[in-house]
This record gives sequence, structure tokens and C-alpha cells, in this order.
Amino acid sequence: MINVAIMGHGVVGSGVAEILINHPKRIEKGVKNPINVKYILDLRDFDNLSYSDKFIKDFNIILNDPEVKIVAEVMGGLNPAYDFVKACLLSGKSVVTSNKELVAAKGAELIDIAKQNNVNFLFEASVGGGIPVLRPMVQCLAANEITEISGILNGTTNYILNKMIVDNMDFDSALKLAQEKGYAEKNPAADIEGHDACRKICILAALAFGKHVYPSQVKTEGITQISLDDVEAADSFGCVIKLIGHAEKLDNGKITAWVRPTLISRDSILSGVNGVFNAILVTGDHTGDVMFYGKGAGKEATASAVVADMMDCAKHLQARKYLYWEDGNENYVEQYLNEKCKIFVRASCDDYEKLCANFESIFGNDNLCYIKNKFRKEISFITNADYENVINEKLEKLGAGQIKTIHTML
Amino acid sequence: MINVAIMGHGVVGSGVAEILINHPKRIEKGVKNPINVKYILDLRDFDNLSYSDKFIKDFNIILNDPEVKIVAEVMGGLNPAYDFVKACLLSGKSVVTSNKELVAAKGAELIDIAKQNNVNFLFEASVGGGIPVLRPMVQCLAANEITEISGILNGTTNYILNKMIVDNMDFDSALKLAQEKGYAEKNPAADIEGHDACRKICILAALAFGKHVYPSQVKTEGITQISLDDVEAADSFGCVIKLIGHAEKLDNGKITAWVRPTLISRDSILSGVNGVFNAILVTGDHTGDVMFYGKGAGKEATASAVVADMMDCAKHLQARKYLYWEDGNENYVEQYLNEKCKIFVRASCDDYEKLCANFESIFGNDNLCYIKNKFRKEISFITNADYENVINEKLEKLGAGQIKTIHTML
Repeated sequence: MINVAIMGHGVVGSGVAEILINHPKRIEKGVKNPINVKYILDLRDFDNLSYSDKFIKDFNIILNDPEVKIVAEVMGGLNPAYDFVKACLLSGKSVVTSNKELVAAKGAELIDIAKQNNVNFLFEASVGGGIPVLRPMVQCLAANEITEISGILNGTTNYILNKMIVDNMDFDSALKLAQEKGYAEKNPAADIEGHDACRKICILAALAFGKHVYPSQVKTEGITQISLDDVEAADSFGCVIKLIGHAEKLDNGKITAWVRPTLISRDSILSGVNGVFNAILVTGDHTGDVMFYGKGAGKEATASAVVADMMDCAKHLQARKYLYWEDGNENYVEQYLNEKCKIFVRASCDDYEKLCANFESIFGNDNLCYIKNKFRKEISFITNADYENVINEKLEKLGAGQIKTIHTML
Repeated sequence: MINVAIMGHGVVGSGVAEILINHPKRIEKGVKNPINVKYILDLRDFDNLSYSDKFIKDFNIILNDPEVKIVAEVMGGLNPAYDFVKACLLSGKSVVTSNKELVAAKGAELIDIAKQNNVNFLFEASVGGGIPVLRPMVQCLAANEITEISGILNGTTNYILNKMIVDNMDFDSALKLAQEKGYAEKNPAADIEGHDACRKICILAALAFGKHVYPSQVKTEGITQISLDDVEAADSFGCVIKLIGHAEKLDNGKITAWVRPTLISRDSILSGVNGVFNAILVTGDHTGDVMFYGKGAGKEATASAVVADMMDCAKHLQARKYLYWEDGNENYVEQYLNEKCKIFVRASCDDYEKLCANFESIFGNDNLCYIKNKFRKEISFITNADYENVINEKLEKLGAGQIKTIHTML
């Protein structure tokens, strides 16, 4: 029998407890050994649960019990999760976590401590909830050099954008609906401002390219500036707007990484990822594009990923899994690339005739798709591929009263 | 240094040799040990290759060399692959294969022999080419009970159907184009008649549900009967036709499994899987739907999956991976379920007025979507959900001169 502890009994933590306690046969069959939940750490009282006898409020009981071999950290947040996880690893316990904030901030350090102490530190649930992505990336794509990762990494923002695209809902109404459905938190900032997606692309990039990427190094833009008009205009060009997290290896040994609203073609498999679903598209030099898709959040999906990691730890109490990256450094991440790109533009002007004339003289020879909307006094178009500064110079000359640009993956 | 042998130097085999020989650093970094290709078994001569000194024509050289720890079987076909693989496992060598025919026919037996001899038998490349699916299914979904698998498992047929859907090409022209592009073989029967997809759903079902499923137990229908008219009619109902392999756990401990052309809604993520791409949708009781997507075939993608398995064997020369199912039995697979389903129907009749009148009297109260095409004297519709025999009885009464039905996942 292998004793484990769960730290945190919130949404994910209660899911982990329920799977381990309600499905002992399934667990034992996979591990060839039963798993016993010895402690659940939470400051709150849960007197009405069938397993209420397992609750403790003092972390040291877990830390000082040599019988506890595996600890699941599902509290979230950086503190005290970081101190607790570090202490557990140092005392020879394997740790599993769903905490993306922790892994994105302290992954390299904790992985190294796990290595020094010959225990495992696993965190499949920190990216993509129940979607298997980190382990397949490391194991199955082992013979590949990963060159690029693009993902829809946040279910809340994808749900909101999807409601705008499919149901013509405006941003505020879609956000309110997401909150009512429990897909968005009361304070939705971490989701809608892109921070959650940012942490996940940091973890993916670190694992794929071998060096820690700090959230502060990744230029991050959320979806709060995306209007229903943008969504509709994008649709006219056969595109949808998605919040994309992207990381890519550069020839100079550095990487680029960003999170931002991005136009993608309806022909792309990513455009069909709707609702709260997530998808991670990984490009390998031999496999080409491989995509992992599923529910990126939610109690059961995330909990099942945590339990799968705990089972893996239980099967490998004596062996370490290969999940590793080094410390990052200041100059490792280039924010945006000086590479040719296509930009989606909506330009409007009270003097519509002048705008049209300028557009004609500046972009007339570019042979590009555009829509002139006389009623709105607006021209929308997707530029030809060029360097961003060249495009921006042209856009300045348009003399538009209002101009809005969105990046594309076209 | 770990010595390995490659049996077969065709499309996949040459890819395996190239990755192992051209990327020694990548391999060594992953394995923490260099891998040396000691032999390549092929009856043909390859004198012009830089590694032509490795070629042998006698299998016994591999079998009797105790230095060879891992063998990749990439010859394809049941014989002599089966004898060779069995002999290797019995002599204590781990074996990796991309051979779906072999695994679908002899998987349970070979897995058992590997177990008895404390070596590994891995076959990630046998399903979905370069897409990681078997290993994530076993490992990451370990805490889940898998209830259902649906997949687009054959790139050739998906390419052909896609050309019909997108470019209005008829079946014969699309097949010819696929052959010209190298996506279909000269004798395309195994692909277009569904046998290849059948083998893959057998492997997926065996792994997911724990018991061997023999190809002969799976009712298999290819795409040769699908016409451009079918594709266009399906499109009018917001659907696409895909060749789907499906397996599902039943309450009575049995499973159902089939391969057949199936209407799926354009809202389904599977409908966006185009060209030669494959996708496998796995439903777990906790995770819900998880999809794995990528190139299902091709030299490099498949070879990289074989190499990844070889690397995994090299890292676990002393430890066995958990990849296991038992022998199957005769009554384990129910061909089609007696479950309510919706069926897509195209009915035509020279006496179009009578057909319309019959349709009105039989289906008039069903409140279903239909298209009446007077020019073609045809009515197309999707039935309400009902038992297949009930639907068939109704269809017989239609008095249609010609009637064509296609199953749906709606």
C-alpha cells in the first residue's frame, strides 16, 4: 500500500480525493498496488464528507510522516504552495501538482530539487487540464526536434470568443454568461488578460526547448479589446479570432513567445476548437503538426490528470521520470520577431472619401482582399506579408481617424 | 552503447535508420546512452548508402547476436514478421513495430511472450503514425475508465473524401490523384475497403478495454460506395462523410466495434480533420472527450514514432512498460448495437409524386429535415433517432426505386 496526501480540497483537490477513494480497483489495477489517501490538508472544515477523518490543518504532519510517499499539491497560488512543495521534495516525497502559476514561476528549481533527491515532480495537469500533452510531448516526440507550439490554452477566453463568434454576443454579455456558468471567476482578470495562457505557454516552451521561460518574458495581451465588430469583420475574411499562446525556436538559440488575440483561418484545425475546449498544436521536425485536444479545465478532467501523475509516481517510486529543463536567463526570449507577417486592419475615418483614396494609393498595388463599408466609413483588410514596421509606416499614411490591428497566423 | 537492429528498409525502415544515424546527439540526450544501429535486415541491396555496411540478409545474425538488445520490425505484413518478432522476444530482445496487421492479429500473444521474457513490445507507430495516442491513452488517462473511441484512422480515405467534399471530385478521380501523390498504393484495397482502419480500431479497442479484438470480429465497410452525390447531399444537412472506426464499451462487459462511412456534423471537431491527417477521439469518464491529431502516415512521422519507442526501450532495458491486454474470445464483440440511431437516407423513384406522397404519410409526423429534389426525383433526409429495424421497416414502405442509407454520428 502506498500512502499519499492531498494538499487543498477545492475544486481540483476534492476531485482527486473522490477518484482515489471511489475507484480503488481502477487505481490498484494500474499501479499493481493500492493507494491510500492518508491526509488531506485544508484549513476549512469538511465534517459532512465520508472521508472527513482524513482532514488535517497542519502541513508538518504530512512533511514529518515518512509513510507519505507522494503528495498532490492542488491548492493553487504561489504561496504557500512553493514552500510546501519544496519541503516535500527535499524530504524525499514525490510531488504532483496542477498549479501552473507555481510551475511557470519555479519549475526549473523544483525539478532540480526533485532530481537531487531522487524523487519525481510531475505536473501534467498544469497545462490543458485533462488533456495529455506534456508527457506525450516528452516521450512520444522524443525522436523529434520540436520547432513550434501554438495553443488555445484558456477555456474561459475561448468560451467567450466562441459566444461572440457563434451567437453574436458582445464581450460583456459573453463574460457574464461565462461567469454564470462557472467557466469564469468573479475576478476574471487572470483569464481574460491572458495571464493564465501565458503561464501555460511558459511551461510548454520550457519543456519543449529545455530552458525555463518566465511569464514576465512573454508579451501577453488578453481579449478585453476584442469587439463584436472585430469578430464579424474577421468572419468576412473566413477567419476566427482566438487567444493563441505561441512559442517558437529561433536559429540563434533563443526562442520567441507571446500570447495574443490572433486571426486564424477557418481551414486551420485550431479554428474548430470551440467552447471551453483547449488544443495544443506541436510541430516536430519529423512528425509535422500534432494536436492534443480536450477540456482544458474542470474538476474531473483536471483531477484525473493529477491522479494519473500520482499513479505514475507510485509505479516509479525508485525511478525518475525524464521531465527536465534548465534555468532560464534574461536574453533567452525575444518578444516579437522581426519576421514577415500579415496583419488584420480595421481603419475608419469621418472623411471616408479621403480614407478610400489613401487606401487606394498606399495599398492599391498590393492586390489584397478588402471590404469597404461606406455605412460605417470603414475599410477592413488583411495586409500582405511584410515586416511589421513597414506595415505600420503604411498604416500611418492612411490618415484613418480610428485604426485597429490584430495579428494573424495566416 | 546500446546495439539495435532494424528489420526492413522500406519507407518506414529507411526513415528509422536515417533518424538514428543522422541524429545521434538527440537520441543520446534522450536515452543518456548512444544507440548504435548494428544491423539492417533486407533482402534487397542498398550499395549506395553511407551505411551500406550494416545490411544483412539473414535474420539469424540478429537473433543470435546477444549484443542486439532492441529490434525494430518495420517490414509489414504478417509473415515472416510474426515469426521474427516472436523469436526476438523469446530470446530476450525488446521489439518495436509499426506493423498494425501484426499487432491486430497477434498482439495479445506477443505482449504475453514479452511479459514472460521480461522485455518490451511497443507499437505506438502502428496506430496514427506519428501521433502519440497509445501511450497517452494508457498513461495519462490511467485514472479514467475509457468508454468510447472514434477515429479517422486512415489518411488515404480521408484524403479522398476530403477531395470529394472540398473540390467536388468524384471518387475515381480522387483515388487516382491520391495514387499520383503517393498517398494511396497501386492496389488501394486495404485502405479504401477499410481494412487498415479496422486493424487500428482493433488495437485501440484492445488497449482501451483490455481484451484482444480480431479484425474478423469488426464489421468493416469501406468508402467505395460513397458517391459525389452522397457527399453533396450530406453537405446540405451541414454534415461531412468520414470513414470512422468506432469502439465502445457495453454494460454487459462486451464491446461493439465497427468501421464504416459515417455522417458527422460540421460542429464536431472530427469534421475539421482534413487531407491525410488522422484523429482519434477518446472519451474517458472523467476527462470527457480528448482528441489526438496529426499525420497518420508518411515516412518521417511513422519513423519518428518507431524511434521514440526504441528510445523508450533503451531507457527501460530492465523495466517493463505497462502495455497489456488479454486474449479475446468469440462473443466479445457485438457488431452493431440495437440502439437508437439516426440514419441518412437518399431515396429516389421514377414515380416521384408517389414517393413524395409515401414520404409524407410515413415520415410526415416525424418533423424532420428533408430536401425534395424534383429534378432528380429524390428525397434526402436524416431520420429521427430510432431502432434500425424500425427505420428499415419505414424505409421499405417508401416504395423508392433506389434507396441509399448511410449511418450517422448525430
